[in-house]
Amino acid sequence: MAFRIEKDTMGEVKVPADKYWGAQTERSRNNFKIGPAATMPLEIVYGFAYLKKAAAYANHKLGVLDKEKRDLIAKVCDEILEGTHDDQFPLVIWQTGSGTQSNMNVNEVIANRAHELAGKTIGEGEKTIQPNDDVNKSQSSNDTFPTGMHIAAYQKIVAVTIPGVEQLRDTLRKKSEEFKDVVKIGRTHLMDATPLTLGQEFSGYVAQLNHGLKALKNTLAHLSELALGGTAVGTGLNTPKGYDVLVAKFIADFTGLPFVTAPNKFEALAAHDAIVESHGALKQLAVSLNKIANDIRMMASGPRSGIGEIIIPANEPGSSIMPGKVNPTQCEALTMVCAQVIGNDVAISVGGTQGHYELNVFKPMMAANILQSAQLIGDACKSFDANCASGIEPNHATIKTLLNNSLMLVTALNTKIGYYKAAEIANTAHKNGTTLKEEAINLGYVTAEEYDAWVKPEDMVGSLH
Amino acid sequence: MAFRIEKDTMGEVKVPADKYWGAQTERSRNNFKIGPAATMPLEIVYGFAYLKKAAAYANHKLGVLDKEKRDLIAKVCDEILEGTHDDQFPLVIWQTGSGTQSNMNVNEVIANRAHELAGKTIGEGEKTIQPNDDVNKSQSSNDTFPTGMHIAAYQKIVAVTIPGVEQLRDTLRKKSEEFKDVVKIGRTHLMDATPLTLGQEFSGYVAQLNHGLKALKNTLAHLSELALGGTAVGTGLNTPKGYDVLVAKFIADFTGLPFVTAPNKFEALAAHDAIVESHGALKQLAVSLNKIANDIRMMASGPRSGIGEIIIPANEPGSSIMPGKVNPTQCEALTMVCAQVIGNDVAISVGGTQGHYELNVFKPMMAANILQSAQLIGDACKSFDANCASGIEPNHATIKTLLNNSLMLVTALNTKIGYYKAAEIANTAHKNGTTLKEEAINLGYVTAEEYDAWVKPEDMVGSLH
Amino acid sequence: MAFRIEKDTMGEVKVPADKYWGAQTERSRNNFKIGPAATMPLEIVYGFAYLKKAAAYANHKLGVLDKEKRDLIAKVCDEILEGTHDDQFPLVIWQTGSGTQSNMNVNEVIANRAHELAGKTIGEGEKTIQPNDDVNKSQSSNDTFPTGMHIAAYQKIVAVTIPGVEQLRDTLRKKSEEFKDVVKIGRTHLMDATPLTLGQEFSGYVAQLNHGLKALKNTLAHLSELALGGTAVGTGLNTPKGYDVLVAKFIADFTGLPFVTAPNKFEALAAHDAIVESHGALKQLAVSLNKIANDIRMMASGPRSGIGEIIIPANEPGSSIMPGKVNPTQCEALTMVCAQVIGNDVAISVGGTQGHYELNVFKPMMAANILQSAQLIGDACKSFDANCASGIEPNHATIKTLLNNSLMLVTALNTKIGYYKAAEIANTAHKNGTTLKEEAINLGYVTAEEYDAWVKPEDMVGSLH
Amino acid sequence: MAFRIEKDTMGEVKVPADKYWGAQTERSRNNFKIGPAATMPLEIVYGFAYLKKAAAYANHKLGVLDKEKRDLIAKVCDEILEGTHDDQFPLVIWQTGSGTQSNMNVNEVIANRAHELAGKTIGEGEKTIQPNDDVNKSQSSNDTFPTGMHIAAYQKIVAVTIPGVEQLRDTLRKKSEEFKDVVKIGRTHLMDATPLTLGQEFSGYVAQLNHGLKALKNTLAHLSELALGGTAVGTGLNTPKGYDVLVAKFIADFTGLPFVTAPNKFEALAAHDAIVESHGALKQLAVSLNKIANDIRMMASGPRSGIGEIIIPANEPGSSIMPGKVNPTQCEALTMVCAQVIGNDVAISVGGTQGHYELNVFKPMMAANILQSAQLIGDACKSFDANCASGIEPNHATIKTLLNNSLMLVTALNTKIGYYKAAEIANTAHKNGTTLKEEAINLGYVTAEEYDAWVKPEDMVGSLH
Repeated sequence: MAFRIEKDTMGEVKVPADKYWGAQTERSRNNFKIGPAATMPLEIVYGFAYLKKAAAYANHKLGVLDKEKRDLIAKVCDEILEGTHDDQFPLVIWQTGSGTQSNMNVNEVIANRAHELAGKTIGEGEKTIQPNDDVNKSQSSNDTFPTGMHIAAYQKIVAVTIPGVEQLRDTLRKKSEEFKDVVKIGRTHLMDATPLTLGQEFSGYVAQLNHGLKALKNTLAHLSELALGGTAVGTGLNTPKGYDVLVAKFIADFTGLPFVTAPNKFEALAAHDAIVESHGALKQLAVSLNKIANDIRMMASGPRSGIGEIIIPANEPGSSIMPGKVNPTQCEALTMVCAQVIGNDVAISVGGTQGHYELNVFKPMMAANILQSAQLIGDACKSFDANCASGIEPNHATIKTLLNNSLMLVTALNTKIGYYKAAEIANTAHKNGTTLKEEAINLGYVTAEEYDAWVKPEDMVGSLH
Repeated sequence: MAFRIEKDTMGEVKVPADKYWGAQTERSRNNFKIGPAATMPLEIVYGFAYLKKAAAYANHKLGVLDKEKRDLIAKVCDEILEGTHDDQFPLVIWQTGSGTQSNMNVNEVIANRAHELAGKTIGEGEKTIQPNDDVNKSQSSNDTFPTGMHIAAYQKIVAVTIPGVEQLRDTLRKKSEEFKDVVKIGRTHLMDATPLTLGQEFSGYVAQLNHGLKALKNTLAHLSELALGGTAVGTGLNTPKGYDVLVAKFIADFTGLPFVTAPNKFEALAAHDAIVESHGALKQLAVSLNKIANDIRMMASGPRSGIGEIIIPANEPGSSIMPGKVNPTQCEALTMVCAQVIGNDVAISVGGTQGHYELNVFKPMMAANILQSAQLIGDACKSFDANCASGIEPNHATIKTLLNNSLMLVTALNTKIGYYKAAEIANTAHKNGTTLKEEAINLGYVTAEEYDAWVKPEDMVGSLH
Repeated sequence: MAFRIEKDTMGEVKVPADKYWGAQTERSRNNFKIGPAATMPLEIVYGFAYLKKAAAYANHKLGVLDKEKRDLIAKVCDEILEGTHDDQFPLVIWQTGSGTQSNMNVNEVIANRAHELAGKTIGEGEKTIQPNDDVNKSQSSNDTFPTGMHIAAYQKIVAVTIPGVEQLRDTLRKKSEEFKDVVKIGRTHLMDATPLTLGQEFSGYVAQLNHGLKALKNTLAHLSELALGGTAVGTGLNTPKGYDVLVAKFIADFTGLPFVTAPNKFEALAAHDAIVESHGALKQLAVSLNKIANDIRMMASGPRSGIGEIIIPANEPGSSIMPGKVNPTQCEALTMVCAQVIGNDVAISVGGTQGHYELNVFKPMMAANILQSAQLIGDACKSFDANCASGIEPNHATIKTLLNNSLMLVTALNTKIGYYKAAEIANTAHKNGTTLKEEAINLGYVTAEEYDAWVKPEDMVGSLH
Repeated sequence: MAFRIEKDTMGEVKVPADKYWGAQTERSRNNFKIGPAATMPLEIVYGFAYLKKAAAYANHKLGVLDKEKRDLIAKVCDEILEGTHDDQFPLVIWQTGSGTQSNMNVNEVIANRAHELAGKTIGEGEKTIQPNDDVNKSQSSNDTFPTGMHIAAYQKIVAVTIPGVEQLRDTLRKKSEEFKDVVKIGRTHLMDATPLTLGQEFSGYVAQLNHGLKALKNTLAHLSELALGGTAVGTGLNTPKGYDVLVAKFIADFTGLPFVTAPNKFEALAAHDAIVESHGALKQLAVSLNKIANDIRMMASGPRSGIGEIIIPANEPGSSIMPGKVNPTQCEALTMVCAQVIGNDVAISVGGTQGHYELNVFKPMMAANILQSAQLIGDACKSFDANCASGIEPNHATIKTLLNNSLMLVTALNTKIGYYKAAEIANTAHKNGTTLKEEAINLGYVTAEEYDAWVKPEDMVGSLH
């Protein structure tokens, strides 16, 4: 393998000749062999590309970077955003907790690629653009990494999570309307209860997701605050006046998202409560989705020896040994995602508690977790929607049978004959294996006509909707 | 011990003669000997008292309960809210997951006490007021318990948590202003970094708490939604028309808080995402507070062999063996609370995932956890404020010494001589145990005059604030 | 309220005249108003009583405490262990993280009560026994508190947790044997699968609990290691030679449990991995119990519109609105406990990570959580056993119906006609709503005789057991 | 892109022509687009390769598979284990919760590759070996996937985790011995306390890791139990007599690890408490490692304005803006790993609680999390050891200064003049900024000679070690 020599303040390092990265990236590769290579999410790299370009523009506008350098930096950033250099970012999550090494990875790649774009040969001559003095101008790892992770997380949430959840929510709402007249047995404590419609049941899921979406959107304001301009400790040392506001404006322009400079840079470096906050909402969505997926698989259970009130699509053979078996696999994928997100929330909380003085050094871990959760929830909702929710159909025959069997229809008599007599009817029917109507009449509490008039499942679902 | 006989639909039960509770409470006492007695939070009982009174008023107004019964019920509810009957609620958290038994405990106490208020003897004659048919009229455990827990949690958050956090936030803001000219060494990765002011450091804490308060307030809208009116499964079976809106209005009037009826009762019974959501914000505050408390104890460490940049109040002897020791005990109490809240968040998330069909049966556990977290955060913030934060003073001598020792002041030279030469100065001074100035001059990169003009800590803290 | 004056190294404090505690307890009461009073578990206080008595004996034996003082200290410790002084320990969990104040609470109560036992009046004359120099002799809070919490946790686990789990395990084993011939439909993915016996199902629960018990017992060796003798930082400063081994021996004698001195006192003060380890096993049990309780409530669901394969005892009316309803309330209490224990595990892990240098200062929080988990699991298992598990009965009729309906019996044909043909039979029967036998014959893959000979549910459960 | 047609019981599917996988793998690829492709850990695939080969051997030995088929299957398994087919396993974690699709992926790859090895062309002619009837013979996904994950997790723990932790433990032990005479100030509550040696401090870390290793090894017995032979629901339907024991023996032989057949197959399919148990021990190690890493970075803090008692290797430039900065980056990587493992533990616990009836369907998520944790802990320990721990050196000058400054040396006087007088000396010296000796003499409690004889730091560290 061919190498070239790169230098940093600690000396020389051999770097693979075909890579743009430099000394510090290479040191990190060697010093942090923890887990598979290149686990630092590319979304973070792209976040960096936006911010490096924005910094170049702001630095130029404020008179501290010439136009030629600005444009070279911007050109490489655009290439990175097009995915051209995805293989130039070999570092892992488990590096320095400030993400300094990934910041330098980006700085080095930009500098070397810019050198090439300037018509020169990498490793030869003085660098056209310096990684620290030019690409990183008016910046520190301490403000760039949190900026990069806010950009990445915000984008993921609006591009993947919210659309995924909304797509599922829309389907569930449509189903809720379709099923609005399907009266079925209700269940509380898993036990037979008074009836409701299948549409009402689904309306609860819609309400859950709407609340979750609202909660998630509530967190975006905090996430839109960018640390950039705080530099090393939040004071903005070595930045030109007005830089922080301007660079945030460029980022907002380049991404099309409402980013602003953080009003308090000390918080923005030393704590990542914005990540904690947004992930808290993702976790809430996971909690909701778990409930929904559980209900659907229980209602679809069977086909003959379970509840069997709904039919879900059969997408694949369900068993390698039991022929003809179909399973609620989308529910399973989704609930596994939910469990992961609940775990990720703890990892993020633990990391969030541990800022020390001017810097929280759990940045890459927190970033990786929120990006994973945001992706998984969005993807799993879309998958669940396309391959399960949108194909749900009621099993009318089973629904009817289970409804009519239920002893809890007796509740309709409470307001007519009182709770105690109603309970006596239900208990007697349960003991004797008979129907409510038989026992209601036998016990002399109602006539057959009264029973028929009072105990109508379809009248028991309507007070509210 | 004297007993009387109480009955329910399952038969007779012996109940202590001096207690107002009835058969179902007594059954629960016997069937759920799990942990210490009476762990069901009294705040939940008080929430029930509000809602039972509101239900009586709504039922009366809608023509299904006579005025005399309404007033008897309301009278007992008022007594409960005054704390008169605190010893009448012996049940534990670890009962049925719907809280049915605590609902019945309240119903039974109200019914028997009302009987007494009506001039009769408990256990004699037909009950003046029936626990199920009157006190529980237009209600189910399934909608009362979540209503009670929303009332309790909302009250706790606005009465204890928010004022506690705000009190601490105000003190930290005041300190931030007081300390605005105290220039000190910054620390990133726990290592010496460029300077900032102690006031800036504290401003970060203020920003954290402000964000946390905003996040918590964002959750209150969901928490203000009350399940009451949904009855058994969310359909509102056995409630008079208009009841749900009206009963929420009465609760809002009685509590002075902006409660409304939940737009979707199915969600309100089957899921407790509102608890998950609010607790998520409490957890965020715990994360923030942990960071703040950790910083303060590290800065106060010493007194002679630690950092020692600030002095915190000495409230008690710190050691049973080391004489004269003073410890950051308020930081410890606060961070223990933070750890507990992070744990409680997981318990609540797990409970929240497990609603089945029309009912989530982790209600008492979820309620107990959010009430504990809300109380502890509020109390701990007040305690921390009164006994620690408000007495923090800078140790100016130490701050100055540590600031002037630092090699990171070299960063001010980056924009003058470039990152690489600046690094060389710092590395040389570190290696030789000398000062930056000496080495800067020795290396020939700056003159003494330039050094003094360029490296001024007080000029390094000011770009942003 | 009457007061007397007590003193410590910081000065005078007014203390309620009728209490034995002294200045430091009173300071803590005032400085830590966090949550309800007296939340420090009494089990910890009792742990202290054992260790204070043991220290007195060891100190006497090693010649540093006279016999009279030893016996006075021991006498008060015995009184504490009898519960006589339960109202003398008003402090909260949320105090100093070393538990120093609770150590001093015990020291002060012992000193003042000993003064009284010596025939003198509290608050008058020099103390017969000094809280620091006598009661706390050869000790520090830093080694006493972890010793107290190990004693308390160990006792709770062997006296409450293990017997509770074993009692339930024994019942489940008995049921497993009772049900060994009850062939029923198996369910995987909640969907119909090949048959097994109800006894086999229950044998899985027994295996889970046996593994959990083994895991819990595996942790006891670490928990049996006592910090006492390490004093302030683990070096054993101010202890007589041989003290650590001897004092552990006395504790072992007094408690009847196999306590030993920790081989490494630095670990024993600075980390509480033994608590983390034991609680990890409690959490594993919670995971197992949650699975078991979930299965049981799903199998008992109905009574008419659920699975209904087993019948569980009806212990109380299940609904305040639905007459005659019976719910799996013991499953609910148990699963709420499981959620709490999973949350507590996180609180303990967070606390465990945060030892700093020579001391972990999350002691009271960690202690309170493990004691709660150990108590709740033990109690909940006993309650679940007595009120649910021991009364479980199969619903033979339903079991038989569901078994014979299932299409998964076709799996028996795999080894005769191959997976693909078997799948075709099942799919056809599912589509047509017919029986497997009909379609097997129609498709020409087997004769009626072959079908009857090959597809026998009772032959499908027996390969292994 | 070229395709070929593959079939399963649901019909035809187009599959990339250059891949060995079949219809069910392709369906899963299309139905579960959740997160990046191919996230199912290869370790699981290798676990499957072992078990498929073992099953072929057992089936052959028991007379249900001919030798030719056995050898073809074994040959492909060997190729898989050599890494030849790593690109043939495109499925994700977030698929069916039983891992059926990954089982079929392996079955299909083996069948098609075997067809090729048999000299035929994939997609042409009847398959030489059937994926379900031959490769999956005597198996189900339900017993193969848990077997695969036990093999993978066990291997990872013994090959990566334990050696990594032991390597670090050995270095810390070596350092503990090296530093056994370096007397330094102790710190409790982060505050100055009585002295100990740096070696004693490090011995505490060694004790933590030894306890953690023991705890981890305690869990291996449970993890060594294999589900294989239970088939669909645990009964072993369609397996030849003796198969379960025999197949485990083959796996043990092939892997060189002490695997045995699970005594209870119902537990082994329906619950994954063995994963919960082993991960609990990994989490304990994470808790310990976090404490150790935190201590080290605090002791190394500075270099001039922190604690600075130890010097850690400078492996890379620490800041992109602050020249010459060196950070405790290995501590950061390690503590980020610890936070992740604590989060993963929650994900695993949540998954573990949710087995339903005969099957837990959180298998792939649980497997992925334990494999990640086991890998990260092992790798991070090695990285931390090589790049940090092994290079730690005491900063003798700073250690000595901080030691001699401390007021807590006064504790040595407790046994000479009593706690109260000692406290007075310390408080006076603290107030006056003087030395203990000065004030001890001024107050008239000791003579200069006594002070020098009694207060010797090196005598204060020695009682125990």
